[in-house]
Amino acid sequence: MAMTLKEAKKRKPNARKSGVVRMGIIGYGYWGPNLVRNLQDVESAEVVAVSDLNSARLKTLSRKFPSIRLTSECKDIFRDSSIDAVVIATPVSTHFMLAKQALLSGKHVFVEKPLAASVQECRALIEIARTQKKTLMVGHTFEYNPAVLKISEILRSGELGRLHYIDSVRVNLGRYQSDGRNVIWDLAPHDISIILHWIGHMPLGVSAWGQSFVQKGIEDVAFIRLGFPGGILAHIHVSWLAPAKLRRMTVVASQKMALYDDLENFEKIKIADRSAQLNVNSDQLRVDYRLGDIVSPHVDFKEPLGQECEHFIESIRSGKKPLTDGESGARVVRILEASDQSIKQGGKFIRLT
Amino acid sequence: MAMTLKEAKKRKPNARKSGVVRMGIIGYGYWGPNLVRNLQDVESAEVVAVSDLNSARLKTLSRKFPSIRLTSECKDIFRDSSIDAVVIATPVSTHFMLAKQALLSGKHVFVEKPLAASVQECRALIEIARTQKKTLMVGHTFEYNPAVLKISEILRSGELGRLHYIDSVRVNLGRYQSDGRNVIWDLAPHDISIILHWIGHMPLGVSAWGQSFVQKGIEDVAFIRLGFPGGILAHIHVSWLAPAKLRRMTVVASQKMALYDDLENFEKIKIADRSAQLNVNSDQLRVDYRLGDIVSPHVDFKEPLGQECEHFIESIRSGKKPLTDGESGARVVRILEASDQSIKQGGKFIRLT
Amino acid sequence: MAMTLKEAKKRKPNARKSGVVRMGIIGYGYWGPNLVRNLQDVESAEVVAVSDLNSARLKTLSRKFPSIRLTSECKDIFRDSSIDAVVIATPVSTHFMLAKQALLSGKHVFVEKPLAASVQECRALIEIARTQKKTLMVGHTFEYNPAVLKISEILRSGELGRLHYIDSVRVNLGRYQSDGRNVIWDLAPHDISIILHWIGHMPLGVSAWGQSFVQKGIEDVAFIRLGFPGGILAHIHVSWLAPAKLRRMTVVASQKMALYDDLENFEKIKIADRSAQLNVNSDQLRVDYRLGDIVSPHVDFKEPLGQECEHFIESIRSGKKPLTDGESGARVVRILEASDQSIKQGGKFIRLT
Amino acid sequence: MAMTLKEAKKRKPNARKSGVVRMGIIGYGYWGPNLVRNLQDVESAEVVAVSDLNSARLKTLSRKFPSIRLTSECKDIFRDSSIDAVVIATPVSTHFMLAKQALLSGKHVFVEKPLAASVQECRALIEIARTQKKTLMVGHTFEYNPAVLKISEILRSGELGRLHYIDSVRVNLGRYQSDGRNVIWDLAPHDISIILHWIGHMPLGVSAWGQSFVQKGIEDVAFIRLGFPGGILAHIHVSWLAPAKLRRMTVVASQKMALYDDLENFEKIKIADRSAQLNVNSDQLRVDYRLGDIVSPHVDFKEPLGQECEHFIESIRSGKKPLTDGESGARVVRILEASDQSIKQGGKFIRLT
Repeated sequence: MAMTLKEAKKRKPNARKSGVVRMGIIGYGYWGPNLVRNLQDVESAEVVAVSDLNSARLKTLSRKFPSIRLTSECKDIFRDSSIDAVVIATPVSTHFMLAKQALLSGKHVFVEKPLAASVQECRALIEIARTQKKTLMVGHTFEYNPAVLKISEILRSGELGRLHYIDSVRVNLGRYQSDGRNVIWDLAPHDISIILHWIGHMPLGVSAWGQSFVQKGIEDVAFIRLGFPGGILAHIHVSWLAPAKLRRMTVVASQKMALYDDLENFEKIKIADRSAQLNVNSDQLRVDYRLGDIVSPHVDFKEPLGQECEHFIESIRSGKKPLTDGESGARVVRILEASDQSIKQGGKFIRLT
Repeated sequence: MAMTLKEAKKRKPNARKSGVVRMGIIGYGYWGPNLVRNLQDVESAEVVAVSDLNSARLKTLSRKFPSIRLTSECKDIFRDSSIDAVVIATPVSTHFMLAKQALLSGKHVFVEKPLAASVQECRALIEIARTQKKTLMVGHTFEYNPAVLKISEILRSGELGRLHYIDSVRVNLGRYQSDGRNVIWDLAPHDISIILHWIGHMPLGVSAWGQSFVQKGIEDVAFIRLGFPGGILAHIHVSWLAPAKLRRMTVVASQKMALYDDLENFEKIKIADRSAQLNVNSDQLRVDYRLGDIVSPHVDFKEPLGQECEHFIESIRSGKKPLTDGESGARVVRILEASDQSIKQGGKFIRLT
Repeated sequence: MAMTLKEAKKRKPNARKSGVVRMGIIGYGYWGPNLVRNLQDVESAEVVAVSDLNSARLKTLSRKFPSIRLTSECKDIFRDSSIDAVVIATPVSTHFMLAKQALLSGKHVFVEKPLAASVQECRALIEIARTQKKTLMVGHTFEYNPAVLKISEILRSGELGRLHYIDSVRVNLGRYQSDGRNVIWDLAPHDISIILHWIGHMPLGVSAWGQSFVQKGIEDVAFIRLGFPGGILAHIHVSWLAPAKLRRMTVVASQKMALYDDLENFEKIKIADRSAQLNVNSDQLRVDYRLGDIVSPHVDFKEPLGQECEHFIESIRSGKKPLTDGESGARVVRILEASDQSIKQGGKFIRLT
Repeated sequence: MAMTLKEAKKRKPNARKSGVVRMGIIGYGYWGPNLVRNLQDVESAEVVAVSDLNSARLKTLSRKFPSIRLTSECKDIFRDSSIDAVVIATPVSTHFMLAKQALLSGKHVFVEKPLAASVQECRALIEIARTQKKTLMVGHTFEYNPAVLKISEILRSGELGRLHYIDSVRVNLGRYQSDGRNVIWDLAPHDISIILHWIGHMPLGVSAWGQSFVQKGIEDVAFIRLGFPGGILAHIHVSWLAPAKLRRMTVVASQKMALYDDLENFEKIKIADRSAQLNVNSDQLRVDYRLGDIVSPHVDFKEPLGQECEHFIESIRSGKKPLTDGESGARVVRILEASDQSIKQGGKFIRLT
């Protein structure tokens, strides 16, 4: 059985391959296995080390990938000069410290969403990355989702007309976080990053309502309203207390309307040629309706996390700013912060400057 | 062909039948044909006259029911002493004047939802009905819907545990009203009457956000939050600008959760044996989940409008207060008013006293 | 209250209006109320008499339409020379005798599907109608369904390419017939009439499998295969024993595929730009796939039964052959007969000549 | 970064671990990556070698799992005495020869469904495995699917009453096989193995209809009928030419009915408390219906392929016959053969002895 392929032979464990980005992963919880699997699939990346405080979690990893070094100390990863880039997939409260250390150790850094626990922290990370000349990227996965990108493309094309409002519902049962963050910090980064991607700029302000049912003081149901220039509205409903999982976004514009249901296997997007428009020729207040075809455009599905991992590696290699850079991360956190503020003030409109 | 059935023979047009409630209908627009059809099906009711300003609408009616008198003057109905009861299915702004005249003419009155354009008007109608000793009923159709009643029954049984929140989505394309009322006055009476029916008392207060896209100053998209004693929350999303029709209510409680989708043909209600609960025995903040069966109880479907028409006739005959009496109508209008107020004040929480 | 509209005044009960087709209906069972309602809506038709052996059924009718004469004797209708046309909505076994008598009494005749209990009976009715110079029409309602007609139009346009096969599923719980006919005679006339409408000619032959579970000797589950020239196939699955109601037809062609789900409220038809095609340039056996957009064309929905009633009246008035004439009825019955034959012979292919 | 976990250290590539079953995989096509992933997850299994004629396919594997030996020669695997068991995931036509060689080389063998290209081949493999005292298992994955097992359990409990029939629809676009096998050999092994599992014995006979649209002589659409003792029926519709993917099985019995939709994410199984039953007390032919609740039992989902891989390893270690042993594979192939025969004879009922 001599015929081991050449590629396999060359692959001495932990040996440096030219052009390959060597990765360390910090945090191997719920999302960790997905990150490892997707990073392993990127041709020019190599996962060389993973750290987690909980060694039980690492066991399954060691059986599958005996060549990956496992550690309970993230410092082992920062100190290893053979590691080029670090992925941080830990609770939000630790993002800042870990990302800071990683950047200061000379690593490129990818942080799971949200980038950090405050805008101030985000700003500091952006500044450190700038000084260190390292890539800082945040894991707004949905901005790499082909369905989200398809709707972006349709919006940019003008086919839908003038945007009126976006409504997003992201509810399911759990998963309550152990770090005391509410449902907004857990789920809404997805909606917010998608909405900012589609609209292309920040809202003028934010209002939010929230309520805590299971844990005192930690909202598990929330409603967020973003007011954009030109009267454009976005509304987000997130919940950890729902009988069925829903991931549904509706985009209403003056000419057509779009539906994006992320749980649909076959028709994730539908563009409805439907609209209501004021009849300006009528003496009376009359609204005309158009009811046309509904089109579900074919979208070539690629796993968003895979696309995101590839983009991180490409950004490192090209030195170009990633699509979801530190600024993008800070924008989302700005809205999360304002939502919390608004909830505390009974839904007051928090102006963003 | 002598064999015309006996019942048919007896039926001289407009002849008084003992025990039969003779009805006049004012307004034969979108909803009118449904009212006529359902009232005709009530054994002890008889539609004897219909009025509408638009005689074209009455044409189709005359062909089908040659014995029904048609008129463009509602006064013809008020003056006709052979008419016992009046159904008002006109724009909201006219409800008060028409209902008042009808009551003062000695008729029992059924008014389509919402009862009137303000709480003050509602109060006045309740007072007149009391003095006139006539039945005053409002058309909160959903309170006669077997699916809504089934959930009521389940809630009362305690099976779901302690109620946390109710979320209601009622959106579709149009129909914009010609009388300048916003989407809240058009659609939300349904949600509000259902929610009050389920919860059994008034909220402490109301907040609302709204936005106008098609007609200046007339909200076509709105979000309403009702805060009930004990931290119970209800949220309502209504819209005239949506690509697809949705009528979906979610009831989340401490033990189980219920879904009610009025557009489902076969499984309108689902009870999910699912919950999230704080583990009080754990040192850490830990939430436990229960994921059990989902049951769609069989509901014997009867057309709600038919049930409602029957209830109106029964209430007249028995002299008992109808389920959806003037007070019930006033409660819903109170919340509609407060919603409008809150929108004008940027979502401020309007306390109900 | 003098303002009764003019039309209403003119309408003396049972008085002849010029140009109006006066109708008698025989059989007021499950389908009867729908027929009366839809015929009443046709401007130039008037239902003047209804007969049913069961007088209880007629009671509700008499309350609603006191001017319609009710009888337990169908002869009353045949003998009434003021009646122009007769609708027969009775069990299949009686169709032939009733339609024959009606035609011989000089009436135009509409028979609910299937036209008669055998091809021989159909032939005889066609011949009598020809001699009597009366319109004979069969109630293949789906041929008046806008969704079915839309697919017809798409098929004729060539957009789908060459037709491969049609698959139809029509299953639900019940309703078992009291006249001993199997599920094929009850449900399959719909599928067969639609398929013949779409394909435009008769199959070369028929095979069928059936099984009886609830009533001995009366198939309640059946599968029918129609073989058309050019290798085109149609398959029909009908059942009275199914947990959920399904009405789903799939049209597979060389370029595109169509789905027609009659129970969908909003997207009854979908055209999928999908196909599998043999790659003739490849050395190996290779099949290429195309996965494009899915389009749900807007179909302006009109109640098929209403369209059908109008067409019957129009055919009488114009003297033109109706779309679903006696021949159309005979074709469907030919296939029903062949299906029964094939079941008895274990699925043998019954050649139609 | 010395903290590599102990487990990882012990794992010298290709070193024998006591109690661990060392696996070789032959064929790394469409299904291969899933097999490797799931086998890697079984604690007491280790994938040590993979062979495929196409070296390009193996490349991705080598990057991820540098310790797995890769080869284009399956003989390398047969000859390696350190390998305990072989998984065969190649085209059907090669199953017999490869499985035979593997067994004769002293390996335990797992063959993807269907077991072999004929009953004769299956018999021979069973015999060789018996003589060699090795485990022979076939990959009827659905027999390890928790939803299928849940329905089994419900059927055994008697809750549904007497079984009437099973209807199965398994259609999608493609994937045409390169080895000249028709859609029955590709898709129907799933339906057949599930049905045999549920019913618990072989049918008396088989009829089938099939048609070829894309490739001459290779049926891409087929219908199979299995007749079981006691009048129980099963019907299978498989197709490579369908606009939408469907995997739906219906189980109809005398008391209740079950639906199993494998594409549903949340409610894969529904048990409908619905039935039609002959009223034996009635003089007339009367059928009574029961329409009760619909229950979707919670099923704890585990990946079927993972369960299957574990069962293979367990069977090897315990020496017990696997659930889906050679006999089970032969039974399915017997029905596939009979289906082909029946199609060639125009749907003739092929009696199984």
